[in-house]
Amino acid sequence: MSQHAAPPEGADFGHGFARALDAADPLRQYREEFVYADETIYLDGNSLGRLPKGTPGRLQEVIGEQWGRRLIRSWPQWMEFATSVGDRLGREVLGVEEGQVAISDSTTVNLYKLINAALDLRPGRGTILIEKDNFPTDLYVVQGIAQARGLTCVYLDSHIDHGVDASLVTESLDADIALVVLSHVAYRSGALADMVSITAAVHEAGALMLWDLSHSAGSVRIPLQASGADFAVGCTYKYLNAGPGAPAYLYVRRELQSLAQQPIWGWFSQRDQFGMDQKYESVDGMARFLTGTPNMLGITSVDEGLNAIADAGIGQIQEGGRLLTGYAQLLADEWLRPLGFAVASPRQPSRRGAHLTLHHDHAWQVCQAMVARDVVPDYRTPDRLRLGFSPLTTSYDEVWRGLDHIRQIVEENAHLAFPTERAAVT
Amino acid sequence: MSQHAAPPEGADFGHGFARALDAADPLRQYREEFVYADETIYLDGNSLGRLPKGTPGRLQEVIGEQWGRRLIRSWPQWMEFATSVGDRLGREVLGVEEGQVAISDSTTVNLYKLINAALDLRPGRGTILIEKDNFPTDLYVVQGIAQARGLTCVYLDSHIDHGVDASLVTESLDADIALVVLSHVAYRSGALADMVSITAAVHEAGALMLWDLSHSAGSVRIPLQASGADFAVGCTYKYLNAGPGAPAYLYVRRELQSLAQQPIWGWFSQRDQFGMDQKYESVDGMARFLTGTPNMLGITSVDEGLNAIADAGIGQIQEGGRLLTGYAQLLADEWLRPLGFAVASPRQPSRRGAHLTLHHDHAWQVCQAMVARDVVPDYRTPDRLRLGFSPLTTSYDEVWRGLDHIRQIVEENAHLAFPTERAAVT
Repeated sequence: MSQHAAPPEGADFGHGFARALDAADPLRQYREEFVYADETIYLDGNSLGRLPKGTPGRLQEVIGEQWGRRLIRSWPQWMEFATSVGDRLGREVLGVEEGQVAISDSTTVNLYKLINAALDLRPGRGTILIEKDNFPTDLYVVQGIAQARGLTCVYLDSHIDHGVDASLVTESLDADIALVVLSHVAYRSGALADMVSITAAVHEAGALMLWDLSHSAGSVRIPLQASGADFAVGCTYKYLNAGPGAPAYLYVRRELQSLAQQPIWGWFSQRDQFGMDQKYESVDGMARFLTGTPNMLGITSVDEGLNAIADAGIGQIQEGGRLLTGYAQLLADEWLRPLGFAVASPRQPSRRGAHLTLHHDHAWQVCQAMVARDVVPDYRTPDRLRLGFSPLTTSYDEVWRGLDHIRQIVEENAHLAFPTERAAVT
Repeated sequence: MSQHAAPPEGADFGHGFARALDAADPLRQYREEFVYADETIYLDGNSLGRLPKGTPGRLQEVIGEQWGRRLIRSWPQWMEFATSVGDRLGREVLGVEEGQVAISDSTTVNLYKLINAALDLRPGRGTILIEKDNFPTDLYVVQGIAQARGLTCVYLDSHIDHGVDASLVTESLDADIALVVLSHVAYRSGALADMVSITAAVHEAGALMLWDLSHSAGSVRIPLQASGADFAVGCTYKYLNAGPGAPAYLYVRRELQSLAQQPIWGWFSQRDQFGMDQKYESVDGMARFLTGTPNMLGITSVDEGLNAIADAGIGQIQEGGRLLTGYAQLLADEWLRPLGFAVASPRQPSRRGAHLTLHHDHAWQVCQAMVARDVVPDYRTPDRLRLGFSPLTTSYDEVWRGLDHIRQIVEENAHLAFPTERAAVT
């Protein structure tokens, strides 16, 4: 925490202190690079990151010049975009050497591709191990594949607030487990898993390891290469600020690339694509894990979103996230605990990503009351208020004002005016 | 052809006649709705359609307002966008009733999803029938699935220039065929398959029918619902003008929706998505065929691209395509046949989509010489020059000038200065 200001003596966690933290924040300059269109207090940067100021112009260039003027003559420029931006994301965010990351499809589809590829590499084993509280799409994809292939899913009994313990994984491993699928940062609690120890234990048991990095990419350092993890996927619209539904990425450890084969054989993974041969033969390298025509506007947004992250550096971003969640935790303890809230994340900043979750019996009502005041958190079932801080875009002042609103709402019972039940979308 | 000008007496197919055809073209007003950034003669609207003038502003609205300002508060507006724009595409382009089309993923991924869904509905059958000259990604996806499921692929011996004959399909059907996968308009030759007769024959044999509409959507009427076809997929960046890598669509006949289950179980097909249940239970209707988070910029481009098509109507567009290809064929016969070219598409306009393909021994060299003159065709292996006319954006003048360039190039042997071999990308 050397570059950051230490709390001054006698700080009362008042508004002035938040402003002092902002003034001393080495990341504050990056806020200038994002759009703040109004006074909304945005505590959901881990759901949909803010719009970088450079993105509209960059997209305009792709739309007007590459598509509008050059039309198909842009293809030479587009052909390697999925892997070249993948390389950049790998270097700046995932800390891996080039040739191991590509931008492609959605996280869901990438999970599907890589889980199948992994299972093909462990043909004698019949079980997939997954945390019971993993992000729903991860659970669903695993369930679908297990049903299709006649495999068993075993659900790790992780703690809803503290996530997956390495020893729990070790205890759960046996010789029938082909693959372990976990999130590096838990979507609900923000708990950070010990990637290095867990991956080592999984490999020790002869299984393969796939990490979902959706909530950790752009918020914490990821020891992906150092851990020896086999596969990873993640989305780009959270801390990577690439916009709603921007394409996801996938990582395949170099040594596995020539062995692994994903199941969706499309023309973008064909060896000589425009040879248009009638027989599929997959290309070498990460393009082997592509499918159909890549989304050029989406990849452009990913590339643009990487600028501020690359400039600030993940180390500094991680430190910022720990201070923001730490400061929010102090305010929550001081103001909100007496009002029925409890921190539902690991209390130690180094054990979590950049979001902090609070339990409250009326969390859904509080969430609605906050949105009505232009304070945007995320509600997570069953009774959690998830506060996502994006170190490049969230100020201490926003944290202070956001938590002050929660305090006011509950002190005034303003949340009781809102529906108790979420309307299910069926 | 009633609304279109008949060729004047004694027409010599000179430049003046092309201009007269443009002046009489009931679709000419729509050219005003697209960007023409320079003098390029663009004969590749069937590979990447032109940029609609409305698209940059519409995307700017999504980027600046929906993403930049409203952030996650836009989700209520985004949640049904994949199916509402799917409905519109279904109505305006595919001629089907609502609730049967969604925008999702790429054509490749959609093929994968629906082919697997179809095969699950015919568990006792072990063969997939596909045209040997289908678009490569269709062939590759089928090959991958056949390998994974231990099925046999049978390749229909279609004609490279005339496509798939209904009687050939009938002869090839037997009780082991689970699914037939064909393109409605052939990507190389433009040959139009008889969807109604073929689908009837396939159903008669107890198999299911999946059509790839990539080259027919937005160029010809598609008797999708009338034919009773079970599944369809297609891309949106050709005649639908949604831009490079825009998301694809899929169609599932209403009666099959509750029976069919696609293999990629993601959170966007979950019954109560934000209930975040740990167990997958698919929703009813077309959302059942979605996977991960939809691409909002991409779906917006699809929606915007539909405006001109909806306004002009597919009937008028199809007529325009037949006249454009017919006119190009006249010029090709007159000018290019003596220079070694032959029409490599069905000669009868009603038997093809909106592109016309020419055979020439030096097609690749001619293609390169054309591009050097800012005339953009598509080369297709092994010796084909594919000329794609988009009825909303291609003028008769462009056709005349494009074919005049080809004539000049070959008369002057200008193409011989270009490489004879395509560099393979490996």
